[in-house]
Amino acid sequence: MTEPDTARTRRDTARSRRDTVESLGELATLARILPRLPDGASTLVGPGDDAAVVAAPDGRFVVTTDLMVHGPDFRLAWSTPHDLGWKAAASNLSDVAAMGAEPTALVVALAVPGDTEVGFLEAFADGLREGCEAMAPGCGVVGGDMSVSPTATIAITAFGDLGGRAPVRRDGARAGDVVAVSGALGRSGRGLDLLFALGVDHAGAPDAALAAELRARDSDVGWHLAPTPPIADGVLAALGGATSMLDLSDGLALDAGRVARASGVVVDLHAGALGPDPRAALAGGEDHSLLATFPAGATLPGGFRAIGVVAAADGGPARVTLDGRELVDATGWDPYARWSGAAG
Amino acid sequence: MTEPDTARTRRDTARSRRDTVESLGELATLARILPRLPDGASTLVGPGDDAAVVAAPDGRFVVTTDLMVHGPDFRLAWSTPHDLGWKAAASNLSDVAAMGAEPTALVVALAVPGDTEVGFLEAFADGLREGCEAMAPGCGVVGGDMSVSPTATIAITAFGDLGGRAPVRRDGARAGDVVAVSGALGRSGRGLDLLFALGVDHAGAPDAALAAELRARDSDVGWHLAPTPPIADGVLAALGGATSMLDLSDGLALDAGRVARASGVVVDLHAGALGPDPRAALAGGEDHSLLATFPAGATLPGGFRAIGVVAAADGGPARVTLDGRELVDATGWDPYARWSGAAG
Repeated sequence: MTEPDTARTRRDTARSRRDTVESLGELATLARILPRLPDGASTLVGPGDDAAVVAAPDGRFVVTTDLMVHGPDFRLAWSTPHDLGWKAAASNLSDVAAMGAEPTALVVALAVPGDTEVGFLEAFADGLREGCEAMAPGCGVVGGDMSVSPTATIAITAFGDLGGRAPVRRDGARAGDVVAVSGALGRSGRGLDLLFALGVDHAGAPDAALAAELRARDSDVGWHLAPTPPIADGVLAALGGATSMLDLSDGLALDAGRVARASGVVVDLHAGALGPDPRAALAGGEDHSLLATFPAGATLPGGFRAIGVVAAADGGPARVTLDGRELVDATGWDPYARWSGAAG
Repeated sequence: MTEPDTARTRRDTARSRRDTVESLGELATLARILPRLPDGASTLVGPGDDAAVVAAPDGRFVVTTDLMVHGPDFRLAWSTPHDLGWKAAASNLSDVAAMGAEPTALVVALAVPGDTEVGFLEAFADGLREGCEAMAPGCGVVGGDMSVSPTATIAITAFGDLGGRAPVRRDGARAGDVVAVSGALGRSGRGLDLLFALGVDHAGAPDAALAAELRARDSDVGWHLAPTPPIADGVLAALGGATSMLDLSDGLALDAGRVARASGVVVDLHAGALGPDPRAALAGGEDHSLLATFPAGATLPGGFRAIGVVAAADGGPARVTLDGRELVDATGWDPYARWSGAAG
């Protein structure tokens, strides 16, 4: 007697979800993942050879690389694999956007414990694909690598095309420029604070059930775990005459300080433009919003809104001020300084 | 009384070598490493902004990414940090070369335990720079990322320019072509076998002193830890009409099988051309030599030497044969299948 097809299918599906990267091996694991990754409009030779070939019509390409390590950079009790794929896309695409470039391609290197279920990697690939589709349609995954590691590690490298324009760097802010931001300020940091306060068990360890409950109650938690920065505004800023730009990965205070120092200017932020909690806006990292400066009088493009002005340093140090006053605790994200060792 | 300058300098140098990435923080660590990395002739915007900008005069670029994880991919008891930098360069440059491209740039993402001494990272950077200088002069490090991890992890992404040529892929081998190789066959695998046999203590754990002694006695050990594949021969092969090419990372038998399957042909290797130990040549991975096929009668360029011929599959399966006979144990490197978990 044969069992009904539906029951067999259901059981086979359950079994195939339980396959691990170790039991399947590299080739079979890749065969499960590759179809889920996005093709790209710029992909000339995709995965499967020694290297990929990507179109660079500009004759230059923009490149950024980013490492996410379980522990300092994410916690598996808080992030779903879909979140990790999405966030890996977001944080790299925003670096490409912050140069004024259009994202064209990604390569993905991934190391996970050998007993990781292949379903985890499939969900990671889905997050990566859906993140690219949402934030940078046409940007594909052109290649990658896999290994085993006791510490889950994601290394993404992202590429962009400048379309003939000069890259928008950090050092072009000039006295009189308007300081503007596109995207959230402090939401990701607030979400992370909530997770550290309420997404942990009595021993302080990250807890999946508590985090899921918290996420359902407060949208900043989901924003921290899988943010959607305004990638297309990078090109719009460049076309709109941005004199400097970067993505807010380490917090507005610290990242604005980078623009100030690179440009030799004072970046004066307006507390009233920083939302209900200016302190959270200044300190919170990982929103991956775009911070740019524009010539006075320029029409701010896309989602950019004014949050301050650039002033001359006048012989004083390049620095960030808030309504003209010194910032005394402009701290930001340093993975070496802040990681407690608590994973989960 | 002041102490002599030389004593103070010596003590300061010793102290600065003992600085850890955790005690120094990310910025100060980067400031120690960046000056040691190679500039590149193609670098338009280097490290320090959100992303780098690299010249791609061809209008396309070649890209490959490779992950090296402590445990499955290297052992800190066997590899010096200088070896790791050199080998990370070698294994990525060879993938670029195997497309027929000239390496132009690298990005480097690195995660190490927080108590890693900065001197370790400096030596890694030195290995990377000297490897690039030796194998691909003009290829620079244009950017990177750092994080902390209990598992030392190196993720390199490498780029190349095709100079207007078509990429040399795996699927172009045709019946009648000559099969040729440039570089060592089996030396790296033999070195690794020696390390596993004699570079371990009584409990089987990798041992630094035994490995160093072994390395001084047998040059294949050093070749495994820091190989020097013939990178420039990639472009020479393309100019010389190569119909297919790949780099030998997983062993000649397995990698030749990839060419055979992609091209739908039989790759027949000549045992007499594989050196004194054909079995070691077939099985040994990580030489990163270049395997290519050329039209019959072509002058083999650079260091290429003939090791076989391509034959039609004639309705049979695409496969690798040795002097016309089937290979029965064509195994190669699968990190998921072969890692025992032993680190060191």
